[in-house]
Amino acid sequence: MVIVMAADATQKEIEHVVERLHELGFKTHLSTGIERTIIGAIGDEKPLRDEPLEAFPGVEKVVPIMRPFKLASRIFKEQDTIVDVNGIKIGGNRIVLMAGPCAVESYEQVMETARAVKEAGALILRGGAFKPRTSPHKFQGLGEEGLKILAQAKEETGLSIVTEVMSPQHVEMVAKYTDIFQIGTRNMQNYMLLQEVGRTDKPVLLKRGMSARVEEWILSAEYILDMGNFNVILCERGIRTFETYTRNTLDLNAIPLVKQLSHLPVIVDPSHGTGRRSLVIPMARAAIAAGADGLLVEVHPNPEKAISDGPQSLIPEEFGRLVEEVKRVAEALGRQV
Amino acid sequence: MVIVMAADATQKEIEHVVERLHELGFKTHLSTGIERTIIGAIGDEKPLRDEPLEAFPGVEKVVPIMRPFKLASRIFKEQDTIVDVNGIKIGGNRIVLMAGPCAVESYEQVMETARAVKEAGALILRGGAFKPRTSPHKFQGLGEEGLKILAQAKEETGLSIVTEVMSPQHVEMVAKYTDIFQIGTRNMQNYMLLQEVGRTDKPVLLKRGMSARVEEWILSAEYILDMGNFNVILCERGIRTFETYTRNTLDLNAIPLVKQLSHLPVIVDPSHGTGRRSLVIPMARAAIAAGADGLLVEVHPNPEKAISDGPQSLIPEEFGRLVEEVKRVAEALGRQV
Amino acid sequence: MVIVMAADATQKEIEHVVERLHELGFKTHLSTGIERTIIGAIGDEKPLRDEPLEAFPGVEKVVPIMRPFKLASRIFKEQDTIVDVNGIKIGGNRIVLMAGPCAVESYEQVMETARAVKEAGALILRGGAFKPRTSPHKFQGLGEEGLKILAQAKEETGLSIVTEVMSPQHVEMVAKYTDIFQIGTRNMQNYMLLQEVGRTDKPVLLKRGMSARVEEWILSAEYILDMGNFNVILCERGIRTFETYTRNTLDLNAIPLVKQLSHLPVIVDPSHGTGRRSLVIPMARAAIAAGADGLLVEVHPNPEKAISDGPQSLIPEEFGRLVEEVKRVAEALGRQV
Amino acid sequence: MVIVMAADATQKEIEHVVERLHELGFKTHLSTGIERTIIGAIGDEKPLRDEPLEAFPGVEKVVPIMRPFKLASRIFKEQDTIVDVNGIKIGGNRIVLMAGPCAVESYEQVMETARAVKEAGALILRGGAFKPRTSPHKFQGLGEEGLKILAQAKEETGLSIVTEVMSPQHVEMVAKYTDIFQIGTRNMQNYMLLQEVGRTDKPVLLKRGMSARVEEWILSAEYILDMGNFNVILCERGIRTFETYTRNTLDLNAIPLVKQLSHLPVIVDPSHGTGRRSLVIPMARAAIAAGADGLLVEVHPNPEKAISDGPQSLIPEEFGRLVEEVKRVAEALGRQV
Repeated sequence: MVIVMAADATQKEIEHVVERLHELGFKTHLSTGIERTIIGAIGDEKPLRDEPLEAFPGVEKVVPIMRPFKLASRIFKEQDTIVDVNGIKIGGNRIVLMAGPCAVESYEQVMETARAVKEAGALILRGGAFKPRTSPHKFQGLGEEGLKILAQAKEETGLSIVTEVMSPQHVEMVAKYTDIFQIGTRNMQNYMLLQEVGRTDKPVLLKRGMSARVEEWILSAEYILDMGNFNVILCERGIRTFETYTRNTLDLNAIPLVKQLSHLPVIVDPSHGTGRRSLVIPMARAAIAAGADGLLVEVHPNPEKAISDGPQSLIPEEFGRLVEEVKRVAEALGRQV
Repeated sequence: MVIVMAADATQKEIEHVVERLHELGFKTHLSTGIERTIIGAIGDEKPLRDEPLEAFPGVEKVVPIMRPFKLASRIFKEQDTIVDVNGIKIGGNRIVLMAGPCAVESYEQVMETARAVKEAGALILRGGAFKPRTSPHKFQGLGEEGLKILAQAKEETGLSIVTEVMSPQHVEMVAKYTDIFQIGTRNMQNYMLLQEVGRTDKPVLLKRGMSARVEEWILSAEYILDMGNFNVILCERGIRTFETYTRNTLDLNAIPLVKQLSHLPVIVDPSHGTGRRSLVIPMARAAIAAGADGLLVEVHPNPEKAISDGPQSLIPEEFGRLVEEVKRVAEALGRQV
Repeated sequence: MVIVMAADATQKEIEHVVERLHELGFKTHLSTGIERTIIGAIGDEKPLRDEPLEAFPGVEKVVPIMRPFKLASRIFKEQDTIVDVNGIKIGGNRIVLMAGPCAVESYEQVMETARAVKEAGALILRGGAFKPRTSPHKFQGLGEEGLKILAQAKEETGLSIVTEVMSPQHVEMVAKYTDIFQIGTRNMQNYMLLQEVGRTDKPVLLKRGMSARVEEWILSAEYILDMGNFNVILCERGIRTFETYTRNTLDLNAIPLVKQLSHLPVIVDPSHGTGRRSLVIPMARAAIAAGADGLLVEVHPNPEKAISDGPQSLIPEEFGRLVEEVKRVAEALGRQV
Repeated sequence: MVIVMAADATQKEIEHVVERLHELGFKTHLSTGIERTIIGAIGDEKPLRDEPLEAFPGVEKVVPIMRPFKLASRIFKEQDTIVDVNGIKIGGNRIVLMAGPCAVESYEQVMETARAVKEAGALILRGGAFKPRTSPHKFQGLGEEGLKILAQAKEETGLSIVTEVMSPQHVEMVAKYTDIFQIGTRNMQNYMLLQEVGRTDKPVLLKRGMSARVEEWILSAEYILDMGNFNVILCERGIRTFETYTRNTLDLNAIPLVKQLSHLPVIVDPSHGTGRRSLVIPMARAAIAAGADGLLVEVHPNPEKAISDGPQSLIPEEFGRLVEEVKRVAEALGRQV
């Protein structure tokens, strides 16, 4: 940690900071420049996390040097984490496709989609039974009834299930039906929920918050790892920008960046990530070229009848084309789908 | 609602949309321009909320005309809502000051601050017992023990209490100690939590999400109102921008804007809103000049010993100066503190 | 254009707007809903561009329906524009690589880089002689002397040249040396400069402004087309987001989006777009997978000696690897490099 | 400057950086922590500005300690700069009001507005003769003819003039008519233009770029100061955020922040800053409460006939009310209007 003193800091103020650092077990280096003094603090930064050094008189700025996450970091664990979902390996050489409707609407809708995406190559079925919606006046999902439909689809097709959990009280119940918990973008910093899924050993797909920095996203994963559950899959789903032609801006830079900073697998949701059907296929190709370990794609047998997010859903035929194109890119780079 | 058809939409596609609108009970107006056709849909927009018209073939864009919130809207309720907290009126002519430490650390720290802010003119004591922190390795609050300290401070000083609740399971327990529930910025879209506090009749202070649009913020309030609890106070606490010299960018435009769109009272948190002690007083003055109904200010007897957010805390003496300056602005504009 | 009247607009206010629209040659449709009236205006929207309808009493919102660009639009010109630079076709099936140092520093540095990038497969040499720098205390480029070095490199290697022009007064002079004018991100809305290059018939590479929406970027291209010069190449170079681990966030969504909205070719600069050497190759691959027509890459023989932007420059060897990987992705999708 | 080495940096890489720093005349301090080494460089940071230390092998991050601006800094010049415009002092105790139409349209329009704003208390008349517009198909201003109208208004009313200059070639010509050059938001980083007005001694009103950080804005001022012209007035005019109900988000935090970082005067444009007439007066009051030295307000005798920006223009009567309310706030804080 580096403490930059104000240009007009007094000698006494400098000494006061140095003393406090020594009390906390740090060694210090003073660099006295022409305009200001800089104090380097050497030692474990953790005890400093809650010490408000910026509130000390004469301190202008505190510059942390260490990354604030540990368990999720590549430095802590060098090899790629591979999350195992009923034998499906996420984070390995094979790219994993997850597909299905945004919301579970009926048994027929789920089964029709499940069969179609399975045939095209998906291994995991997505579908929301609990839907966080910006307005209370919109469809909020079928709840447990929806989870039962997903479980039936699993039985009949052999696909594994990923579905959202919105509240700590529901974790136990949702766990009975799903293979992967999904944490949605609005709940990326719902820490009580993160801790609750962290207490299970079920895989967690953690969506990036819509305005979150990569560091904050990894720190949210750290909450889950910190409870003992290392089966975390990160999912980039688009960030908010000034653009108005798309609903979100899919941030593919995050893919190689996460891979460099962390050992966790990372997948991409090009459907929410763009919000426009016509962009889903090109961005799915680009995600794989950037190094993503999988895709989460919205597919609906009849998007114009979808209760939620129709405009970004592919029909099964389009999803088939997506798989074809993604396969070609993956193979060109030495990976399989 | 206005449906803009693509330039190359076919006659059949246009008719298909029109038919569906008629089925939903709308009257329609067709405007056939040189380049494209526009369909106006007249009627109650609510059934359209879940109809993905943008997924219909030939549709380019759907432009909603109505605001998506209703109960929170000025159109629904013309007069200002005044929230009553033990006789303190929030939203009336008198500006209400809430102050106290970011986190509850000890009985002594809370009492020292409580007495000082009461003397300076605050009516409500703030302090967090549950602290949502970006990293799991930081201080997470004293929990119920902290709430008990706040309750004691209330008994000894007569100040009312505002404190954060982070999870639906805690609502009942927190309700025993607090006079106002605070919903933090990271939980603005934690809908299960909003619904749970909406089931009580206790006042709720709803902080704006750090990247939320004003419409989304009001829609989150709508979740609470929709459950029957109209005692909602909005709190602007700074948005995320590209600025690096401040922690957040306090958005004062939101004050007159919310006042025009909604009947709910709105207060300002200049401490989190800027993250820099030297900006708190000028921005507090500006907030009142913009029309805020109150302020939420961090005060700590010894910011350099604060466990959380020291850099933005005022010492009691500075808070006294803030009250003085705010009073002068308020009186110049015909309000009291 | 759709004019949404306020909920409390009077009959007289509605009539006043309708009259004005008729004066301007529009036909109007009135949709009288329960809460408010909506006026549809049919006719050429252009005369409305400068009519401040939102300032009319009783008007709440004006919703334009037409896209504001015309010449740059796919509707105006359906086929892809192919820009010809000394026989190199930009916008066709072959992906064009432009590479070279950020700033021209010396004859040796330029020649060494030029030979290396040519060998790896680049057809166009990039290099700045005029450098817009955030601070006046940083290196501002060699000016015309730098242009002469580029011209020499062209003569000796046969590579074509792209270099930045910063001011209308320099257009004539820079034109003597370069094959493509580059307009930098800070000058995307320097309209006098856009018009000046629009008066020539030389190709223009227009970088996206660092916070520009896609519509604004295309409108800036429209300024050049409007002067008669249709040889415009759009270049995505990263937008500003909240991310702090990268310098910019390369927005690949813009590639398929521009391709759908406009007929102009679009290339990608993964060097400025990320600002981190370790992200350049994965993002270059992703750009091609998303459909980009070319790449603009910073290559420096010795990045640690570079006067500007060393941290994002590849060494020639790394550029060779980039070309290899990009080639594989391109071929998988039926394109050549 | 602090250089953070990567966790896996070799001893040789560390020595290589240290050697280079010594060559540049720095003294260095090494802090060898458990995980990584940090190098403190002491000495004048300026020669380091163009040294790409981040490109050195083994370097992870370079953290500058000094602020990059000098002439504009409070450290360089402690007292407030007061800019004198024909005897009007900008930056002193008296708040200066500048008002007028967005665009100069005709002699009558300008004269009517000029008389009205003068009567209400404005000292400076604003009005654009050169208008930078996002689309080439919109009104671009009357050019020199417009400047002549402004000059006439000056003669007849005694008001001083502020008007925009868009290109270095026009500086000499515009100087004949105006008292203050305005640099618009899109040209904040048009460095050739900044340098050209920096070569004159006429006051320059520098608008903040619509996505600029405060540091970048001050650095743009630094370009002007660096040419010898210290008569710079900063003008906050709203930044781009995700908000859709307003055109821009006026950032009042910038006022006290600039005052702390720099000696230059700073004024506020609440008209462009919000884009909504109903927000202009409350935000004008708030700007003064935050410490602004003046206001730039759009006033038009008939906003619905305005060629540009009608929706945010006040009518003269509303401007009169603004002056009244601003006066009350100013006086409460010990300043005059």
